[in-house]
Amino acid sequence: MRFLHTADWHVGKELNGYDLTPEHQVVFEQIKQIAQVEQVDAIVVAGDLYDRRVPREAAVAVVNQELKELNLDLGYPVLAVSGNHDSAIRLGTGRDWYQATNFYLHTELAQAFEPVVFGDTQWFLLPYFELQAARNYFHDDTIQSLSVAMEKIITTMKAQFDLRYQQVLVAHFFAAGSSRTESETKVEVGGLNAVPTDLLTDFNYVALGHLHNPGALQAATIKYSGSPLKMSISEATIEKGVWIVDTKTQAITWHALTPRHELREVTGAFDDLLAGSDSGSHEDYVAINLTDEQAIPDVMSRLREVYPRILSLHRLHSAQLKSLATAKQVNVQQAPLDLLADFYQVVTDGQSLNPAQREWAATSLQQVLKED
Amino acid sequence: MRFLHTADWHVGKELNGYDLTPEHQVVFEQIKQIAQVEQVDAIVVAGDLYDRRVPREAAVAVVNQELKELNLDLGYPVLAVSGNHDSAIRLGTGRDWYQATNFYLHTELAQAFEPVVFGDTQWFLLPYFELQAARNYFHDDTIQSLSVAMEKIITTMKAQFDLRYQQVLVAHFFAAGSSRTESETKVEVGGLNAVPTDLLTDFNYVALGHLHNPGALQAATIKYSGSPLKMSISEATIEKGVWIVDTKTQAITWHALTPRHELREVTGAFDDLLAGSDSGSHEDYVAINLTDEQAIPDVMSRLREVYPRILSLHRLHSAQLKSLATAKQVNVQQAPLDLLADFYQVVTDGQSLNPAQREWAATSLQQVLKED
Repeated sequence: MRFLHTADWHVGKELNGYDLTPEHQVVFEQIKQIAQVEQVDAIVVAGDLYDRRVPREAAVAVVNQELKELNLDLGYPVLAVSGNHDSAIRLGTGRDWYQATNFYLHTELAQAFEPVVFGDTQWFLLPYFELQAARNYFHDDTIQSLSVAMEKIITTMKAQFDLRYQQVLVAHFFAAGSSRTESETKVEVGGLNAVPTDLLTDFNYVALGHLHNPGALQAATIKYSGSPLKMSISEATIEKGVWIVDTKTQAITWHALTPRHELREVTGAFDDLLAGSDSGSHEDYVAINLTDEQAIPDVMSRLREVYPRILSLHRLHSAQLKSLATAKQVNVQQAPLDLLADFYQVVTDGQSLNPAQREWAATSLQQVLKED
Repeated sequence: MRFLHTADWHVGKELNGYDLTPEHQVVFEQIKQIAQVEQVDAIVVAGDLYDRRVPREAAVAVVNQELKELNLDLGYPVLAVSGNHDSAIRLGTGRDWYQATNFYLHTELAQAFEPVVFGDTQWFLLPYFELQAARNYFHDDTIQSLSVAMEKIITTMKAQFDLRYQQVLVAHFFAAGSSRTESETKVEVGGLNAVPTDLLTDFNYVALGHLHNPGALQAATIKYSGSPLKMSISEATIEKGVWIVDTKTQAITWHALTPRHELREVTGAFDDLLAGSDSGSHEDYVAINLTDEQAIPDVMSRLREVYPRILSLHRLHSAQLKSLATAKQVNVQQAPLDLLADFYQVVTDGQSLNPAQREWAATSLQQVLKED
């Protein structure tokens, strides 16, 4: 089986008010070209096709069109799951008809246990799910963490392994040991929402979605494809692309995507930038860091004349920023609970959260994540 | 060809805060039973499957389930169009896959000119459209009214008539000469948005959606099915149901639906109603008219103990209502422009709108309708 692995499309995403739909269309064209050049047998989309549970009409039109082109026009089998940003119910519209053309779209936990057999592979398509869905499915109210749920899920899947076939898992979750970008900081709370990767080693390949960095997890056969577009300035230096996976030759190759407009940081003095000192395309999405110390009248509108797509503007040497810079360095790789514990330590002059406080904070953070 | 004609489902509708989804499920079961007993060859749904362009997830789940049962589980061909309450783009999700199982869902004007040939019939499926869509399609910016657009549309359709077949039109619009209920008062502005029925006589049957009263139009082969549920108190006395149309025998028969809870007006004295004078089911949705003249403390909560689904409460003989009753009787059958003209006359002591005012008002009303 030779397939293309993508995820985290987040169609409908707006970046500081800029609609990314035209950007999506450009990388979608490239994904189709890569699929054709690489002669894949299937396309895998590991969740978060949409950026929001209620996407705008324009976003719906783009996703509908892309799926139609991949499956009906180009004839690729498509294996997809819903992610935490998707509405499982809205995304699932049409799914019962899709399978006639080998488009398998799983949006409910129960569907994960009906492997799709196609080619030389048993495909297990596990959509994003809430813990309560796992409790309901297994009739087990004692399931209190994602790792416990996943252990049951993987065990149930393994009972269905037919060793004449390869096994591929498509899923959308946070794998323990992965590194985060700022866009997904809130993903993990005290380890409760992380999936240990040793559960996943019996699959020939695990196609993950959720993290936007394809290098987030260092494992030979368990991979995030990352998002096809940069979703925030924290992803500025992360290369975007797709994996081409060949389970026969065991070759997994990276194919980079070239955005319509780059997303990058620009640092320099105001006059230099206006004079064109930045050699990158001024059409890019830019986070500008100004090195000037003096006040600059009308700074934003003058910069916009040169850079039409400014995401943010920072004054590196302003008095205000200097004082902030002396504050404790925030490590975005930390889990929210650890960030909170650090914060507590700072504001209480060195005290730690006691176990009761820690538990209360973990519960509250989980509640917040659920509502996110 | 023998088919069931329904329309104006308005799934997701809330009636004074009451979610009608359970009501929809009950009549949907009856529609399936009627289809089976009547051994129809197809199901026609003439628009407004949803009540809103952005339906809630629960509404999406109900429509998805109903269409799946009709088309995939029971195997009926389904011929459907989008109405003015639907989002054409959202409703259209999956439509390219649906046709493999004879589920034809047209959501764009251009699709109306690709007749679906199935059985002994050419089906022309005309979704609700904006005038601008007709101008774009015909490359004709002079189209200023629905009747002009429809003349072009029907002429284009007729050019494709193959007389070895029957021709059926499925559409969603206001047919001239139809009577309105309060739920659709705003439909027609100065005749611009009405379709003359003489355009439609060459079809063997025209299955219409838009008006909720199956008796809205008196024409032998051009019919509104009406909505399967009562959508407001103005529809309290309108029987709801579906048409079974047989183009071979030319028999068109009405099959009534029985709601889970009726929707009706209840008139009486407070004490009598509390004592059970109303012989109808108290579980019904009721608009209560109280005949009492004196003040009644805590009237609403006491009535709710007897009637759990109160839609409105009117005091027929209160002083305030008496004064309103002496005002000019409002005729909901009037077009909005005429209502406005009447209102102008009342507030200006008898003056009429001058032609410029009239044109300005018509333009504004059309703008409002577009945004509705």
